[in-house]
Amino acid sequence: MNALNIAEYVASLGLQARAASARMAAASAAEKGQALRGLAALLRGNVESLQRDNAKDIERATAAGLSAPMVDRLKLTPKIIETLAVGCEQLATMPDIIGEVVGMKQQPSGIRVGQMRVPLGVFGMIFESRPNVTIEAASLSIKSGNACILRGGSEAIESNKALAKLVQQALVDAGLPAEAVQLVQTTDREAVGKLIAMPESVDVVIPRGGKSLIERISREAKVPVIKHLDGNCHTYVDDPCDVAMAVRITDNAKTQKYSPCNASEGLLVARGVAKAFLPEIGAIFAGKGVEMRCDPEAKAILAQVRGANVQDATEQDWSEEYLAPIISVKVVAGIDEAIAHINRYSSHHTDAIVTRDHMHAQRFLREVDSASVMVNASTRFADGFEYGLGAEIGISTDKFHARGPVGIEGLTSLKWIVLGDGEIRE
Amino acid sequence: MNALNIAEYVASLGLQARAASARMAAASAAEKGQALRGLAALLRGNVESLQRDNAKDIERATAAGLSAPMVDRLKLTPKIIETLAVGCEQLATMPDIIGEVVGMKQQPSGIRVGQMRVPLGVFGMIFESRPNVTIEAASLSIKSGNACILRGGSEAIESNKALAKLVQQALVDAGLPAEAVQLVQTTDREAVGKLIAMPESVDVVIPRGGKSLIERISREAKVPVIKHLDGNCHTYVDDPCDVAMAVRITDNAKTQKYSPCNASEGLLVARGVAKAFLPEIGAIFAGKGVEMRCDPEAKAILAQVRGANVQDATEQDWSEEYLAPIISVKVVAGIDEAIAHINRYSSHHTDAIVTRDHMHAQRFLREVDSASVMVNASTRFADGFEYGLGAEIGISTDKFHARGPVGIEGLTSLKWIVLGDGEIRE
Repeated sequence: MNALNIAEYVASLGLQARAASARMAAASAAEKGQALRGLAALLRGNVESLQRDNAKDIERATAAGLSAPMVDRLKLTPKIIETLAVGCEQLATMPDIIGEVVGMKQQPSGIRVGQMRVPLGVFGMIFESRPNVTIEAASLSIKSGNACILRGGSEAIESNKALAKLVQQALVDAGLPAEAVQLVQTTDREAVGKLIAMPESVDVVIPRGGKSLIERISREAKVPVIKHLDGNCHTYVDDPCDVAMAVRITDNAKTQKYSPCNASEGLLVARGVAKAFLPEIGAIFAGKGVEMRCDPEAKAILAQVRGANVQDATEQDWSEEYLAPIISVKVVAGIDEAIAHINRYSSHHTDAIVTRDHMHAQRFLREVDSASVMVNASTRFADGFEYGLGAEIGISTDKFHARGPVGIEGLTSLKWIVLGDGEIRE
Repeated sequence: MNALNIAEYVASLGLQARAASARMAAASAAEKGQALRGLAALLRGNVESLQRDNAKDIERATAAGLSAPMVDRLKLTPKIIETLAVGCEQLATMPDIIGEVVGMKQQPSGIRVGQMRVPLGVFGMIFESRPNVTIEAASLSIKSGNACILRGGSEAIESNKALAKLVQQALVDAGLPAEAVQLVQTTDREAVGKLIAMPESVDVVIPRGGKSLIERISREAKVPVIKHLDGNCHTYVDDPCDVAMAVRITDNAKTQKYSPCNASEGLLVARGVAKAFLPEIGAIFAGKGVEMRCDPEAKAILAQVRGANVQDATEQDWSEEYLAPIISVKVVAGIDEAIAHINRYSSHHTDAIVTRDHMHAQRFLREVDSASVMVNASTRFADGFEYGLGAEIGISTDKFHARGPVGIEGLTSLKWIVLGDGEIRE
């Protein structure tokens, strides 16, 4: 397709999505549940054919010389397909929040005023590699009563097409419009430019992928973007604290996995507990090969730990998202300096305090300006499933609309409803 | 100032606002209350000097040949100043929603997860003529723990400067930073372009004014915009309904005032009640000089009303926001056609049904895709004060973040808070 044809094609997807969204907004919980359970059954009934289509993507990626981890991320194994099916069934059993009414109160005029939860309308989702996202986004879209337009990575196009076909079949089998979930069938990059710039058809765009993709989409989008940039998360070990708990939490926050955005990249330690705490965590980091980039005070203590890889931190280190076995370490005077450091250098994703002091805990919760703020827990918990959202469409590092892990509620909006008995305005 | 200097000046306001916003976010309800009550006292203590400054604007506007209604809108009378003072006092007595914690629940891992309400940060407000907005926006900003940058119309610059000075004095007297509320001191238009394009300092922009101003700002803004475009509101008279109630509500919705955005511009009538209802409302509209632009079926009935100004509606009439003694009138088969017409032509602002049928009421509430949906009440009630918000910073015709009348809550965001007891991720 040439650029003009692509723009026309994506515009037509938009018009179809807008039309389908009205039907989805009015769909009953039973209809949406039927579509989700039907989709689970279709996934289970098509494991072999899905794997055949997936094999085409794998072959192409291997031939193109993609790295083994990249090829791995493309794979639709029977286990992954089963997990997707279970996810759809779980969504089907969750209560339907569409139509929920909150805050209904009578006003002095006599009218009763409240708010009703309704779908946003149409969302566009742009993602890379993993074909599972097709099912995750489609099932969340169905449950939330929205329509969506999905644009997956070109590496997974055959898998995504096969999955999207099953989604549309499940929708039609449940009496819902196939156009409620549409996959952009071309891998041309111009399609993305059009998808993010048609406010008449798409209400919000959710990119998932590398930072450069997300920055490009934020810059060029003509509609709101629910976006996740970097995760420079901190653990602050306060004075007083349970040192054993602080060691356990800091170790988990840094080393349980290095790649997630909610892993801690910075460690702040109150001066009063530094000599008790740092040697213990230093020994663990030394054992796991975690490099420590330190301010002079932390370095003086950690350099004495056998086998520790201790380096001088530069100014840049305080802002760094390593996603690797590296952590910045700084000794601070106490809660004030910790909060100031975090509010200056954190990416406002997730920051935790380990403390026994109630006033410090309250101040940290209130004053740290991050999407997730934690007391006595690992930053690794910042996740839609761990938060009980049932599912996660993405994580927002913005404050507007949705902040932090975004589940079904982030795909909805509250409209005002007024119940009267013939009242008029005087 | 030249363009470069203006950009630097507005950028410096932004940096100061960002710094002040951290202090405002941590301000106690008592401090914010003191600032608001102090502002009320300062307004009352400076009625005469405010009027002197206001007189300069009035003189300049009169000399420039502004129309009498435009000049009227600039006036800061003692009565208006008293109303502003009372508004500040009322805000001071309202509960403080900053720090409110919602939905705290324990998750299977043991962590307790909830959300805490926090200020958005910094908002920019761009408004025309009425200087009262300076105080309304400033007081809402203080109450919600935000910082703000205000840009008023050039016609009211002297009044706005005088008011902003009082606001800053009240802030300082309460121990809060003066930079929490800043007025752009130049009337140069380039200042607006910069104000809406510095996401590092301004989190959201709220324009209030004519449609062309709002469209320009939406197009050029690099930050989210809480905006209000047009209000093409409908009243649908259903079958069955209480005809006397339908007449009272329709009359009020159209004629109580013609200029507000929540006045009804379209009247839909179910065929089954058209012959009972239309002659009655037609007689009232005839008496008040309201022109009726009708479809053929409505015209056939209304043309028989003595003195009625009945015209043929064009396709354009169904989308029109008249803000004048004109209303479009259409007979529809029933609830389905009414909902379809409204979702097609309404500006998604406010639409009402008058009905006795419970199922129709439920469907209308759920399926009409507007910011406010009403049953048996006048569309004129769509207003932050009537909804019990205590104050209104604007009305949003978008779905993202805030929809409909926006009060203090619309200037806040929910962050996640996690309370643990040493939990780590397995």
